This record gives sequence, structure tokens and C-alpha cells, in this order.
Amino acid sequence: MGIRLDIDGLKNFVTEADINSLSPAVTKAHQDLHGKTGAGNDFVGWVDLPSRTPDALVSELESLAAEVRGHSQAIISIGIGGSYLGIRSSLEFLGGESSLPLYYAGHNMYTTDLARVVRLIEQKDVTVVVISKSGTTTEPALAFRVVDAAMRRKYGASGLKKRVICVTDEKRGALRQIANREGYRSYCIPDDVGGRFSVLTPVGLVPLALAGVDIRAMVNGFRAGEKEYAQADLAKNSCYRYAAIRNLLYRKGKVIEMMASFYPNMQYVAEWWKQLYGESEGKGGQGIFPASTILSTDLHSMGQMMQDGMRNIFETFVSVDKVADSVIVPSQADDIDSFNCVAGRDLEWVNQQAYKATASAHYEGGVPNMTIALERADAFNLGQLYYFFEKGVGISGYILGVNPFDQPGVEAYKKKMFALLGKK
Amino acid sequence: MGIRLDIDGLKNFVTEADINSLSPAVTKAHQDLHGKTGAGNDFVGWVDLPSRTPDALVSELESLAAEVRGHSQAIISIGIGGSYLGIRSSLEFLGGESSLPLYYAGHNMYTTDLARVVRLIEQKDVTVVVISKSGTTTEPALAFRVVDAAMRRKYGASGLKKRVICVTDEKRGALRQIANREGYRSYCIPDDVGGRFSVLTPVGLVPLALAGVDIRAMVNGFRAGEKEYAQADLAKNSCYRYAAIRNLLYRKGKVIEMMASFYPNMQYVAEWWKQLYGESEGKGGQGIFPASTILSTDLHSMGQMMQDGMRNIFETFVSVDKVADSVIVPSQADDIDSFNCVAGRDLEWVNQQAYKATASAHYEGGVPNMTIALERADAFNLGQLYYFFEKGVGISGYILGVNPFDQPGVEAYKKKMFALLGKK
Repeated sequence: MGIRLDIDGLKNFVTEADINSLSPAVTKAHQDLHGKTGAGNDFVGWVDLPSRTPDALVSELESLAAEVRGHSQAIISIGIGGSYLGIRSSLEFLGGESSLPLYYAGHNMYTTDLARVVRLIEQKDVTVVVISKSGTTTEPALAFRVVDAAMRRKYGASGLKKRVICVTDEKRGALRQIANREGYRSYCIPDDVGGRFSVLTPVGLVPLALAGVDIRAMVNGFRAGEKEYAQADLAKNSCYRYAAIRNLLYRKGKVIEMMASFYPNMQYVAEWWKQLYGESEGKGGQGIFPASTILSTDLHSMGQMMQDGMRNIFETFVSVDKVADSVIVPSQADDIDSFNCVAGRDLEWVNQQAYKATASAHYEGGVPNMTIALERADAFNLGQLYYFFEKGVGISGYILGVNPFDQPGVEAYKKKMFALLGKK
Repeated sequence: MGIRLDIDGLKNFVTEADINSLSPAVTKAHQDLHGKTGAGNDFVGWVDLPSRTPDALVSELESLAAEVRGHSQAIISIGIGGSYLGIRSSLEFLGGESSLPLYYAGHNMYTTDLARVVRLIEQKDVTVVVISKSGTTTEPALAFRVVDAAMRRKYGASGLKKRVICVTDEKRGALRQIANREGYRSYCIPDDVGGRFSVLTPVGLVPLALAGVDIRAMVNGFRAGEKEYAQADLAKNSCYRYAAIRNLLYRKGKVIEMMASFYPNMQYVAEWWKQLYGESEGKGGQGIFPASTILSTDLHSMGQMMQDGMRNIFETFVSVDKVADSVIVPSQADDIDSFNCVAGRDLEWVNQQAYKATASAHYEGGVPNMTIALERADAFNLGQLYYFFEKGVGISGYILGVNPFDQPGVEAYKKKMFALLGKK
């Protein structure tokens, strides 16, 4: 039923009594989030964003997607950070055939990637989604300059209009100015939802709708999360338990959290999670370092360190109960490789045994672990998982004692970079 | 000239005097590696592997690739760990058009991936490379069972013969038995080169040759590395300096190494490096935890933590002097986004300013950093980089005091898994 948190792998590391000892802190965090009375309370709009997301927006985006499919063969999504990771995590998690293939730009400053996007524009009909609250973040701004020039060469100023969609501030910033001046369709990024919390705002919903993702189901899952994780009772709120547990482990010297999954479609969800938790909690010399592996692949690279390296790690598995595909292991007459013992089994069954064995072995090696279990890798469960992690970091960050909703540290390199660029 | 190690970002963290203090340990490690007198000395064949790699093997594989191109539209490469990562790292680093697209199997137990490979076999003519020293590693063994069945359905037993190439032990193991019985072409994995050191053995050379990589240049670069990094003089050997420096940083509490690159084609080279360093040194409760970022992308996710989180991290940048592509930033009449200051500049120039700013900001934030700089992202430089890191971990692991060439920890989960599978 929904998302389960299994804490068998924590026994003797973190007890129910330990978890309950954080009940006052969790309750205070809950009240601060819901009452907007904690640090960074200008940026907690995501707490009730699901219930404030209108069905009408979903319908509008579904229509927009149908219109775009009529004139485009590919989407170019320009954005970085929260304007990139939630889109990629969703598309790769859900897999399947995109109704329109989606390409990224402005997510780095690698000439090879941007040159490839320019060639795409020359070869196919495209629609571009530009996602930037300020319009002055360097990577997407420069990518948009290049993409805009290529689009104008191909379509001219009038042909461009239906092919550029902006997701930006309602009133302010360079991209809002451009959208208004050019008459581009635009959607608004709310002022009270920071980038790493924005996947279920138009930041994610617009490009995902265009790519054919079932955003209706994703929003429904997001809403289910808002309900499920609103319970103040720590014993019943798996999201709050996750937040409490990671603080308890951190206090015991487990300063690295390894998000591990035997489901490779989780790879970019883990990248999205790294931004959410790393950027929220990496402050004042504190914060759990977020890392990730995809298994069983990385058992053959990071497995030795997980088993025998420094004991400063805890592991958070993310599992899926029912996978989409079935592959049966064939029998072989002479059983040279000795795997007839699993002939007739689904490969997914073998995968699950590998997970059980790994969780057990790592536990015995001194790596406490827990499992976040999803029923299916579908849009609904993903929406709920996004809310689980967003609510989780709000609670976790407040327990840690930081403001989870700002990111002052990133100004340091930006200042130096702007000086080198000669930018005012 | 070749690969440079720039240590400006270490000042006041690690001095030349500090580095020299490890000179005796480095000299001992050097002697143990070359004289085969240290721990794990049955597995140091990689030290002089470059000079022992015959040009004739390269020529043979180039001919094999031409033959395979005559009857196949795609390659399926079955392998995991060292039989996967070096192939993927090379293909993604070098980018470009593969003469034959290469797909991976047996690198996980994800049914969606293997089902996709089965569909590929049905739709296109393929050649399969199976890479496994023992032939009994679970993931590739099961994938090969499934792929073999699909290939037989399509080609029959006789049609299969020219389409399966095995890379395995010279004499022992299940895959050697299969290759001999079926008459598959095969290449040998040397006994004295462990999986994570095997990229420039047939493990990597066979699939890379088939995919159209310039393995001749890669082997030449590997050989250049063997020469360059054989110098016992610590002041002149950047590989040994890297090994010494990371031990000095580890002793100062920098227990996480973040490999960071503003060149996204480095992503899987970093994954390969994580296996090499994590699996070699993660022993006895010790070892630096290897992590990686791709920048400037991850400045917008991990940047806050790098700047302001726990100060237990050092950063190793990998840079490229000359990139393959050029993208000029266009001017815009009204400069709404304020980036006309870089109009006319190459995007790569902006990328380089971002790197300088980041290294400086992170240094000031308490993250000592160094840079490994390559001239170009080509096969020669990659071959030399592989050797740089392999020699580096041999020296580094000996300084740390572990056997860098085994991986006993991974037996723990395997034992449990085999019990669950009912495997003898």
C-alpha cells in the first residue's frame, strides 16, 4: 500500500526508542513546516503544493502536449539544477516510449552537447522549453542564446513563437521579459517553492507533459503523499521516520548515506535526491554526504568498500515490488555454469535474492540499512516518492538545525565566475 | 605534454615537504610493484602489461572488427565490473560515432534492460562478446543464457558460431568450456591482471575494437603511461605524487575524494575509477570513499555541500585542454540576460572560467583540490590516464598498508545470495 519503509536492517543501530526520542523535534519541525514558522519559511510553498495544483493545469498541459505533437518531433528542455534533475529523473524512472523524445540543454557548458542540440534543430522540428526563474543562470541563459539563434535561422521570428515555451517567474527576471516581449507561452514558477522542490510545479510538469508522461497520475501520487505524510504521529509517518532515522545515524558517525537500488531506472531519481538533501543540509560544516549506487552493477565496483571500508556509511535501498518486464532464465543441458538451479525463475526473482543477500551482508559488515519500497515504478508512485523525500528533508533539516530552504554556499563560485566573465 | 598534475589547490593543506616525507614509502611501493614483492603480487601483471601487449593483437582485433562489421549492425557486450566499466568509460569518453553501436547486458539483473537486448537481437544482426574470467559470475552468466537462447532461435547453432566471441580464462572455467565446445573465437584474460585492471587486456580491447575505437592509439597511450610513471623520482612522477597526496589528505581527515570534471564525457571514467580505487583500498575499515560529480551540472546539486558541508572532502578535477567542438555565444541586441559580456566567446572558454572559479571557491571553503589535466579527450590520452590511475592505486594502496589487488569483502553477499538461489 503506497510506499513502505522497512527498518529491519537497522536493528541494534537504531531502535524504536531512539526514534521516539526525536518525537519532540519531529513535532516541532512538523509545526514549523505547516505553520510557516521555521527557518526559510518563505520557501515552504511545496508543503501544500499538491492540493493547490489545479486539475485544470494538468488538462491544459495535456492539450498543450497534443498541440506540440502536431508540429514537433522532439522537445529541447533548457534548464539546470531543479530545472533539469526532476525532469530527467522522471523520464528515466518511467522509461517506456516517450511520445516525443526529449533532449537536454543548458545543463552544463559542454560544447559537444550543445553542438549536438544545434544539429538536432537543423534536422528535426522541435519545441523548446526554457526553464529558469531568473533567466540569468549562466548555463541555461547561454544555451538559450545559442538555441534561439538556431531556431530563428530555421523558423524565423514568426515561426518561432509557437515553438518556445517559458517556465519562469510570474513577473520578474530576464526570461519573463523575453517571454512577454516575444509573446511566448509561459507558465509560472511559484515564489515560495525553491528549485530543488519544484519538480511538480510547471518546472517539471510542462516538459514532462510534452514528453508524454502521465502527469495526471504523478500529481495524484504527489497529492497522496501530502495526505499520507501529514500525520504528526511518528509511529505512523514513514517519511518522518526516515527523517528521524537519518539524523540518529548521522549522530552515530554515519556521515555518508548511500542510496542503493537494484532497479537501474532509479539512477537519476538518486541524482535528484542528492540535490534535494545535499543542497538542503550541507551547511555550516554539517550534513550527511549523499552518494548512490545502482545494483547489482556497483556491487562489482563499490561492494568491497561497502563491506569492508570505513564504517561511516548507512545504506538506503529503494526497491520496487513489481517490475514491468519478465525474463525467464532458460535451462541448459549440461549446466556448465551451474545456474540450472534458477532455470525457470524470472531474472527479477534472482535480482531480489541479490538484494536480500546484500542488505544482510552489509548489515553484518557494519552498514545499517533501511529500505524504501514502492509497489510499482509508475507515475503515481513516483509523485508520492517525490513528496516523501521533499517532506523528509524539511523535517530532517529542521532536526539537524539548519535552514533547509536556502543555498548560500553556491554564491562563492558564482561571484568569482562572474568576475572572470566580466559580468556585472 | 601528456598528463599534468596541478597542485595549486593544495597549498597550506599539503606541502612539497609533506609529499617528500612519503618518499621512502613511495620508493618501497615502487620496488614492491616492479619486483612483485608486495601483497597480492600474483596480480601485478598490469604493471608491464602495456609493453607486453603485442601490436599483433591490435592488428588482429582491427581485422576482427572489419569482419564483424560485414555481418553485424550492433554489438552486445556481456560483462560486469571490470568487464563492463572500462568498456563503457572508453566509449562514452571518446564519444563520436561508433562504427557499430554497442549495447550492454549482464551488467545488472534488470529485466527491462535484458528484454530490450532480446528485442535488439530479434530486430538487428548482432555479434555478442561475452567477457567473464570464470564464466560463473551471476549476472553475465544469466544474461548469456538468455542471449544465447535468443541467438539460437534466430541463427541456429551453425549461424551462431561466427557471432559469439568469448573473453575468458585461457584454460579454466565455464566460459572456456563453452567456448571450446562450441568453437567460439576466444581471447584470454591473463591470470595476473585483476578485473579492475583489465581494460587494456582483451577484456576491453575486443569490444572496443568492434565498436570502432582506435585501440592502437589507446594501447600507445597505455605504453606511454608505463614509461612515464616508471620513474622512481617522486618529484617527477605525477602518478606517484597523486598517490602520495591522497594518502596525506586521508591522514588529515579528508576521507572522501570527489572526482569532478567540467567535461561530461568523464562520467563513466569516474565510475571506472571508483571501482579501481574503492575496491582496491576499501579494506579493514580503511580507504578513501570515491565519489564523483559532473560540472557545471552538479554545482547546482552538490555545490552547496562542497562549499559548506562537512570538511572531510578533497576534490580531484579532471580537465581537458582542447575540446572537440566549438560553440560561440551569440550577441543579443538588448542584452536582457546580461551575457553580452561573453558574446563572441566560445562556450568552452566560459566553462573554463567556471572551473577556475569553482576550484578557487572550494579551496577557500576548505576543500583542498588538485587537477589532472589531459591535452585532449582522445584514445591516446585515455590509455595513458588508465595507466596513471592503475599505477597510482598500486602505490597508494601499498602506502595505505592494504593489499590493493584482492577483493575479499565481496564474498559476503555472494555466499548469502548463492544460498538463496540454491546454488552449490
